Amino acid sequence: MAAPTPLLKDELDIVIPTIRNLDFLEMWRPFFQPYHLIIVQDGDPSKTIKVPQGFDYELYNRNDINRILGPKASCISFKDSACRCFGYMVSKKKYIYTIDDDCFVATNPSGQQINALEQHIKNILCPSTPFFFNTLYEPYREGADFVRGYPFSLREGVPTAVSHGLWLNIPDYDAPTQLVKPLERNTRYVDAIMTIPKGTLFPMCGMNLAFDRDLIGPAMYFGLMGDGQPIGRYDDMWAGWCCKVICDHLGLGIKTGLPYIYHSKASNPFVNLRKEYKGIFWQEDIIPFFQSIVLPKEATTVQKCYLVLAKQVKEKLSKIDPYFDKLADAMVTWIEAWDELNPAGASLANGKK
Amino acid sequence: MAAPTPLLKDELDIVIPTIRNLDFLEMWRPFFQPYHLIIVQDGDPSKTIKVPQGFDYELYNRNDINRILGPKASCISFKDSACRCFGYMVSKKKYIYTIDDDCFVATNPSGQQINALEQHIKNILCPSTPFFFNTLYEPYREGADFVRGYPFSLREGVPTAVSHGLWLNIPDYDAPTQLVKPLERNTRYVDAIMTIPKGTLFPMCGMNLAFDRDLIGPAMYFGLMGDGQPIGRYDDMWAGWCCKVICDHLGLGIKTGLPYIYHSKASNPFVNLRKEYKGIFWQEDIIPFFQSIVLPKEATTVQKCYLVLAKQVKEKLSKIDPYFDKLADAMVTWIEAWDELNPAGASLANGKK
Repeated sequence: MAAPTPLLKDELDIVIPTIRNLDFLEMWRPFFQPYHLIIVQDGDPSKTIKVPQGFDYELYNRNDINRILGPKASCISFKDSACRCFGYMVSKKKYIYTIDDDCFVATNPSGQQINALEQHIKNILCPSTPFFFNTLYEPYREGADFVRGYPFSLREGVPTAVSHGLWLNIPDYDAPTQLVKPLERNTRYVDAIMTIPKGTLFPMCGMNLAFDRDLIGPAMYFGLMGDGQPIGRYDDMWAGWCCKVICDHLGLGIKTGLPYIYHSKASNPFVNLRKEYKGIFWQEDIIPFFQSIVLPKEATTVQKCYLVLAKQVKEKLSKIDPYFDKLADAMVTWIEAWDELNPAGASLANGKK
Repeated sequence: MAAPTPLLKDELDIVIPTIRNLDFLEMWRPFFQPYHLIIVQDGDPSKTIKVPQGFDYELYNRNDINRILGPKASCISFKDSACRCFGYMVSKKKYIYTIDDDCFVATNPSGQQINALEQHIKNILCPSTPFFFNTLYEPYREGADFVRGYPFSLREGVPTAVSHGLWLNIPDYDAPTQLVKPLERNTRYVDAIMTIPKGTLFPMCGMNLAFDRDLIGPAMYFGLMGDGQPIGRYDDMWAGWCCKVICDHLGLGIKTGLPYIYHSKASNPFVNLRKEYKGIFWQEDIIPFFQSIVLPKEATTVQKCYLVLAKQVKEKLSKIDPYFDKLADAMVTWIEAWDELNPAGASLANGKK
């Protein structure tokens, strides 16, 4: 009954940070082979990444990033999977799907393999409903609709900018929770997609994530993590907070729920604790900061919104730690680099056309 | 591993509007028999409602309501299931579960009968998390937790005031949607419970609903519907909007999701359209009204909040239709009647102890 989901073969790039696992691409071959891959190598550029035959890909290591961005390469993290956002910047496609190399194909409760990318495309291509909660979840799915009491004026929805997918097996826990519950596995398949309501922040995980570059790309910056930085594992969180307040301001939607991937192995909780512990303190101030952000009416493009955010980060978060001063500068550099690599989008985004 | 859910036998009343269906209580017997039932007959008081042997119940018809409330009985709807809220008022228990007589026991995907009441008790007894979204849904369920990036300071949650359960088979659609999709059935069992975020309104359905009378009872007024009123089928919606803004103000939580009941038959869409059509217009103004409500700091009890709401309804919604003037008066009468029947709660609620 439902129309088949378009493949968007020529409109979507898959961005993957360093591939350490040779099985990874083999397992995804039936689903990923039609697409162009952008691989961003996070560590030592002299190491070679093996990509199995038959995949269409481009690979960037640190030397490439430095060459392409020059001094602006400083905004791209080194020795951390946060470097993947360089791939968002060099892509020329409308849509991005990004996935970690320890994420495999999951199966649904009927035992069928889940085509995660297809579900993300479905999510992104149909509207979001951030202004009112629908108790039967995604109203646009087959067999569902808006329930009694849902205002008719809101049923058209708004464009969807981000589709946040979930994980079976190893849940995305922080180090303290990993340490306390080392054996916990996520076995609950929740057959739902939903829009995260306007005004509500959420923890966006970069493991299994799709977005519309044209709508939100310049806000999908994964910050400064890894080598030389005081924190890690907050790259996707940072991007999620920034994207959410900008989507709320611009009237765009973010969905979460299906599709699931199978997250194969937990990262080391001791290493994670070292990377995270400052973030665990800092987020207690960062969340209220983002909850209280009001973007001005003049901020009509993602770039403009993002630069306002950068300014406020400098003004209000630098007192927590000098790191935020550096991060605010990197946010500005990121936008400059984005506009340099995406001149059409930049002028469009700035309303010059 | 999890502790067994307490029955709350002496702390919970089941409130049912007129029972037309003799099978209804038989089907629920294994689950409901331990509890006290309050049946509120919505129509002709001369008709007799048959209650099968073995149930502990009290039954109120219109004559009883008039006798008990005197002139204040005007706030209780006649010939409409909205009259059920009289049952909330006369109950002396801490918790209420209310269910319609066309709702039967559902089965989960493993084919087991769902004890809806037990799940509601679970939902109500564990906290809510309205200030930040958890992507793995209810963080307090077995096998789940707060995900990476969820602020630790918010993990204690807040008390849960309302548990909103869902429906398999006939979905709770408005008349236009019923007319357009007469054959649609809800067959999707979504294994999730979640807190509706602060600041987000939702369509609360009264078919399968539990709440904590001590925390939110006085706001659970189902308005003026049915005989002599210009609308119907907005009783639960009205209560939901009022409850949500008051819960948000007082720092209480509302959960939705599990448990499912099996909704056996669709009500007549033509009759529904007649009842609903004004509401369908009006809700386009009512929703923005509730979205913009700011309750004052001095409103520290549900009663105080509710009286502020009543005043604002009179000021801002009466221009839509004189009905809202009458409704605002009825809201005040409802609180007076509530406090009369619940003097301890009233003085407690007013801070006099």
